[in-house]
Amino acid sequence: MSIQSGTPAARVRPEDAPAALVRAGQRVATELRGVVDGLEPQLARICGYHFGWRDADGRPTDDGHGKLLRARLTLLAAEAAGADPAVAVPGAVAVELVHNFSLLHDDIMDADELRRGRPAAWVVFGQGMATLAGDALLAAAFCRLAPLAAGPTRRAATVLPDALHRMIAGQSADLALEGPDVDHVEVDHYLRACDKTSALLEAASAIGAALAGADEQQLTALRRAGYCLGVSWQIANDVEDIWGDTGVTGKPELSDLRRSKKTLPVILALRSGQSGGARLAEALRAAGPQPSEPEVQQWARLVEAAGGRAGAERLSRSYLEDAVDQLRAARLAARPREELVRLFRRMVLRES
Amino acid sequence: MSIQSGTPAARVRPEDAPAALVRAGQRVATELRGVVDGLEPQLARICGYHFGWRDADGRPTDDGHGKLLRARLTLLAAEAAGADPAVAVPGAVAVELVHNFSLLHDDIMDADELRRGRPAAWVVFGQGMATLAGDALLAAAFCRLAPLAAGPTRRAATVLPDALHRMIAGQSADLALEGPDVDHVEVDHYLRACDKTSALLEAASAIGAALAGADEQQLTALRRAGYCLGVSWQIANDVEDIWGDTGVTGKPELSDLRRSKKTLPVILALRSGQSGGARLAEALRAAGPQPSEPEVQQWARLVEAAGGRAGAERLSRSYLEDAVDQLRAARLAARPREELVRLFRRMVLRES
Repeated sequence: MSIQSGTPAARVRPEDAPAALVRAGQRVATELRGVVDGLEPQLARICGYHFGWRDADGRPTDDGHGKLLRARLTLLAAEAAGADPAVAVPGAVAVELVHNFSLLHDDIMDADELRRGRPAAWVVFGQGMATLAGDALLAAAFCRLAPLAAGPTRRAATVLPDALHRMIAGQSADLALEGPDVDHVEVDHYLRACDKTSALLEAASAIGAALAGADEQQLTALRRAGYCLGVSWQIANDVEDIWGDTGVTGKPELSDLRRSKKTLPVILALRSGQSGGARLAEALRAAGPQPSEPEVQQWARLVEAAGGRAGAERLSRSYLEDAVDQLRAARLAARPREELVRLFRRMVLRES
Repeated sequence: MSIQSGTPAARVRPEDAPAALVRAGQRVATELRGVVDGLEPQLARICGYHFGWRDADGRPTDDGHGKLLRARLTLLAAEAAGADPAVAVPGAVAVELVHNFSLLHDDIMDADELRRGRPAAWVVFGQGMATLAGDALLAAAFCRLAPLAAGPTRRAATVLPDALHRMIAGQSADLALEGPDVDHVEVDHYLRACDKTSALLEAASAIGAALAGADEQQLTALRRAGYCLGVSWQIANDVEDIWGDTGVTGKPELSDLRRSKKTLPVILALRSGQSGGARLAEALRAAGPQPSEPEVQQWARLVEAAGGRAGAERLSRSYLEDAVDQLRAARLAARPREELVRLFRRMVLRES
């Protein structure tokens, strides 16, 4: 199916509108399709279903629903104000994305089981994933508008929507770490999931730099330092989930492992080539949805024996060192730089 | 409790940081508090609980949690790049809001029942309201950043975050229309709930105008036309939910009434002063959570007999006329203006 033929904007009757409006409408439809196809795969599937471009199994359909009424309103408003509707395409795309975000979330809240004559996305994919898919569309809306910012604010305007987009993709990758599959989980998948944490720490640092009018070298160093901090911290949190003090973490013990979630220590143990790793894989494959306390405790011991804990702690420290090196190699004011270093160490190592 | 004393930034030890950083940190904490307090009441309550400023019943607490680590990172990054951390306050506020959005949503998806040592917001307030509260924080983040846009893009940059903010408040007001209370539901509450629809239609029109470089008169006319269209359409949809053809609406018949949702026809009937209104009030008060089909059909007849349908249809048409009047009174290009009028009529009246 070509992008034009199945999408709603192609239904604009040419006799109703001049060529510029038709072209702008087609660009909106094409861009929307591109935004959805570019999402993290699981989110692309849910949003593709929601827009009516795919069935519940991900197969393309011909009945792309949605009349893009709001996009049409945006394009016509631009024309009515005397401009070529093409100038309003980013706005029209963003408005449709926000609209579909709200449909995905509101159907959950309203317990509406039908949308455009089909089961609503939450009925097919579950409430959690439909919520996240809505979040992804909202992030995409702001990603589309941010580059319109002019001058010195442009850099600051793009940081947060980009981070939000990556956080949401990270959360989706993170959810996929749960479940029975132990054979296809690799460290690079885990690092993508880390974006749920690291993308925002990167953005926190980068937006401060951008608003300060930092030069490129400073901005890059602060951005990367924030990213490395995020990965280091996420790994440390995942280690703590298994071996930490619940009084410090404020979370129930072993909550990840209880869900068969393959965080870095588990992945490193599974990939260790040691007998403990093979026994762990076997145990996780055989596990039911509600493993017993002794089972989960036994898994934790297997992960540690196969080197999963030590390896994860090593990698966390290595990212922390990278973060500090980034800061120290850049031209930054000394006092706040060293305060950042102390902050990083306090976060990851829980130094007081 | 003063804003400073109970909030996390006040815990920055003065000997650790110079006065500018402390002041900036306090501004972040104050602004966050102000953002949350300014939300629609039900959302303010949930977010206040989530941040640790209120207990589950809405009473102030002293244990404001959250270390504002990300805000600190943002402020220090600005300082490290050579600026006064004050320049980074809007960025720091936005980053903390995005962070807390993600906590609210991720706890639902991860089924994490504890957050900062207390029951997570979704455990206390339900998944739907916690999702919406997260959405509200995300909207607030973009509302905080949008005014930083410079020059001609500023107007376009603020439209969508503002609309998102109002849509979410509208959805919260809309959810409050369900349930057994029939004595405190007024038309102005319904109109606030209409913002779930009308805020985005207003924005769709306004953002097209803004991107087209419209003058103030054009922008105002297009914005108001979009708003009036939204109210008109929402009322028409609520009328259709009761008396419409499910083949056209694609939604199950009477889905609002089945949930005792007091949309405009119901409110007008209840407030009609007619005997049918009093009987309707009695019936709704006595209704269980799952009313029978004959009950719901009987309510629909009572609403119609008390003038609820006719009154709602009148108000929908009146808003539609206002929308058209707005367009016709402004200096707009004639062809797209008339096409907007046709689009409005097609949406509300389902004219082909």
